Amino acid sequence: MIKKSIFGGIFLCFLSSVSFAQNNAIIEDFKPSSLNQPGKEYPMVNSQGYARFRIEAPEAKSIKVSLGLGGSGGTVLTQQADSTWMGTTEGPMDEGFHYYNITVDGGKFNDPGALNFYGSTRWESGIEIPAHDEDFYALKDVPHGHVQQILFPSKSTGTSRRAFVYTPPGYGNDVNKSYPVLYLQHGWGEDETAWTNQGRANLIMDNLIAEKNLEPFIIVMTYGMTNEIKFGGLRDFDITPFQTVLVDELIPYIDTNFRTIADQEHRAMAGLSMGGMETKMITMNKPEVFSHYALMSGGVFAPEEVENHSGLKLIFISSGSKENPDRVIQAGKKLQDAGINAVTYVSDKTAHEFLTWRRSLYQLAPLLFQ
Amino acid sequence: MIKKSIFGGIFLCFLSSVSFAQNNAIIEDFKPSSLNQPGKEYPMVNSQGYARFRIEAPEAKSIKVSLGLGGSGGTVLTQQADSTWMGTTEGPMDEGFHYYNITVDGGKFNDPGALNFYGSTRWESGIEIPAHDEDFYALKDVPHGHVQQILFPSKSTGTSRRAFVYTPPGYGNDVNKSYPVLYLQHGWGEDETAWTNQGRANLIMDNLIAEKNLEPFIIVMTYGMTNEIKFGGLRDFDITPFQTVLVDELIPYIDTNFRTIADQEHRAMAGLSMGGMETKMITMNKPEVFSHYALMSGGVFAPEEVENHSGLKLIFISSGSKENPDRVIQAGKKLQDAGINAVTYVSDKTAHEFLTWRRSLYQLAPLLFQ
Repeated sequence: MIKKSIFGGIFLCFLSSVSFAQNNAIIEDFKPSSLNQPGKEYPMVNSQGYARFRIEAPEAKSIKVSLGLGGSGGTVLTQQADSTWMGTTEGPMDEGFHYYNITVDGGKFNDPGALNFYGSTRWESGIEIPAHDEDFYALKDVPHGHVQQILFPSKSTGTSRRAFVYTPPGYGNDVNKSYPVLYLQHGWGEDETAWTNQGRANLIMDNLIAEKNLEPFIIVMTYGMTNEIKFGGLRDFDITPFQTVLVDELIPYIDTNFRTIADQEHRAMAGLSMGGMETKMITMNKPEVFSHYALMSGGVFAPEEVENHSGLKLIFISSGSKENPDRVIQAGKKLQDAGINAVTYVSDKTAHEFLTWRRSLYQLAPLLFQ
Repeated sequence: MIKKSIFGGIFLCFLSSVSFAQNNAIIEDFKPSSLNQPGKEYPMVNSQGYARFRIEAPEAKSIKVSLGLGGSGGTVLTQQADSTWMGTTEGPMDEGFHYYNITVDGGKFNDPGALNFYGSTRWESGIEIPAHDEDFYALKDVPHGHVQQILFPSKSTGTSRRAFVYTPPGYGNDVNKSYPVLYLQHGWGEDETAWTNQGRANLIMDNLIAEKNLEPFIIVMTYGMTNEIKFGGLRDFDITPFQTVLVDELIPYIDTNFRTIADQEHRAMAGLSMGGMETKMITMNKPEVFSHYALMSGGVFAPEEVENHSGLKLIFISSGSKENPDRVIQAGKKLQDAGINAVTYVSDKTAHEFLTWRRSLYQLAPLLFQ
């Protein structure tokens, strides 16, 4: 704040102090983030959702963290007496997972204390602000499904492509049972690791299955930026290359190598953000392939877009409350008015981030294949 | 070099220049390392095995890479006219995979251009110097096995513990076939991701199976530093906690959830470095559990240590030629002289690094379960 007069300056500082003391007093109960590298103390989070960072670079001139509410668009660290750099976010963060990076003397690096997650087309640092409802995605003492890394042949791209396949608990020993399949897509700049690493999709499923809230199904997650190797914008996005990989190459591989129920009725597609856009494009182009469609922070369907979709069982649309919830709810109503089985969900107090999508999957999963 | 006299100085410099011009002229055919993050140009490697780095941090005072043969124990980068920092290793690197990190103004960070690999108890940058024999661990157009992430219950540690399980091609659809199992351990400071990420164990197996050089088997890889959460030294290493996890918890889980042949004859244990030490300790304590033992850069067996091991089928011992090959070869001879089926292997021109262990697995796999 630039003081324009002595009185104004004092007045503003006073207000600011009161506000700080009454509403924003930082409780000193910081603990290491649950996403830290083994044995690393920092970054830390406290019970209010503040994040605190500490970086060692004794000879650096400036260090800034890309996270927080500071006027500079992040949290500026200051050098301490022991030469380490420290700083705390100006306010509490939204609950859930956040990507971040640090700028050291003008260069972008990751926090050596934190695990990395692929987002923004790079491996970024990640931090977890404990959510009041974190139980549904917690690692618990329940039977756990497996997450299989597969390399499937893709003639259209001339490569072996990677996907991850969640198989529910018991898949390995009950060899007579077959399962429905959800194809689940990440967002722009992310990859096929996002839904398990950031999204905890496997733990959400394990917990739901342990509570017997749903019929177990397989989840398949692959890389959706097939034609975006240069990481350009979405304006000229062409769905054809990815659609070919998904529908003509991956689905047949899955149906051959896993015990699936290989028909439209038992096949769903969902995606977050860009993955929602892909879900809409592919289900519009190939309505005969999927029966359940889900868009998470990734657009909506109008009734006239799906009115001829034979075998359509469910449309699920969601977003964070800090995104465009009204658009989601209104789209849902229009679909329902047209006689389509549509469900909408708005994640409370979250934005375009992974807690929105963890919660969306938790809401979606019990509705699938019923 | 400190010049002690004008003549001495000139003479030494002359020799050094000749040597450089004749043997070490750097060929400017640098290409991005195969382990770079998607779309990243640097780090680069050339056909001679030199590595070149470029880091953006315009306001930094000093940047050093932990890799290379420079007198400072690494490669010092210098700031260029465009403000980026660049440097090339003083000499060619050994072929294969290397961990590294960068020091920016006294702080240790990772190279934003490179993928990260868990080693030295942290996620480190990785670079790959193409090896003349890299074909055996290349990603090829052959049927690929799956790598499954499992979370198995561990009462002894009160946690769900993670392991990765390689299942060979065809495992998913030939549901009547059962397989032998190799338990394969990482080294100190690494974790259960090492053997697939750095070691390419799954690709080595896929390629061997495609060439029909071995009977397919399952590989199980889990975290072996059970009691080393503080990352202390190995001097006081107690094998009991990990032995309990492996033998009493993981093996029963694997035999329940995978189609294994669950007997000593069809169960092997191998490890690199500290994992070799663990393999020796556990096979000494539990000779009835495994029939094939392999130590890769991780100690040797004496005949009297295993003479009472009923059901022992094979001892495999290996190291890099830049480690202690004579000790390995002599130990093998003593075992053979005692009538034990021992095989030794020395990896040419490699040290205590992953190319030694990739090659060791490639040599070991066809010998198992024959």
